[in-house]
Amino acid sequence: MSVLGIFSRRPKKTAEAARERLQILLAHERAGLSGADFLPQLQRELIEVIRKYVSVDEDRVQVKLEREQHLSVLEVNIELPAPSERRN
Amino acid sequence: MSVLGIFSRRPKKTAEAARERLQILLAHERAGLSGADFLPQLQRELIEVIRKYVSVDEDRVQVKLEREQHLSVLEVNIELPAPSERRN
Repeated sequence: MSVLGIFSRRPKKTAEAARERLQILLAHERAGLSGADFLPQLQRELIEVIRKYVSVDEDRVQVKLEREQHLSVLEVNIELPAPSERRN
Repeated sequence: MSVLGIFSRRPKKTAEAARERLQILLAHERAGLSGADFLPQLQRELIEVIRKYVSVDEDRVQVKLEREQHLSVLEVNIELPAPSERRN
């Protein structure tokens, strides 16, 4: 399945359809049980990098971190301003 | 479906199972047809941020950018060094 399929099949409420959105999924598969989990730190820096391209409103950023034995997944959803407010 | 499901259902060859891996999926849903596509630039900076946490070997980085009318998805797969080679 192409990765486009993961995102385009997501059900969208009509109001949502008109908005721009950036979704980041970051999965860290660890071989052993140890292995530091650097996703929480990485998350803050990722948002800082994105701020260079679009203005990011704190209230429109949703972050979810899920963790299993060998797998951590960070999900960041950012609702973007309309193109007219964009920086580039 | 939890996002963990997206990554944990992926079929893994036995050799793969022993390695650490970081997978980034970054989807940009654009409202209008215009709207700059900043994913290619963002991609380089994301890898630079990740380098602060783990050493990234250029040959072990795979990048795929897929684009539809309103949706661009960037997929970055990074095979990580064994924990013993890690920086933190």
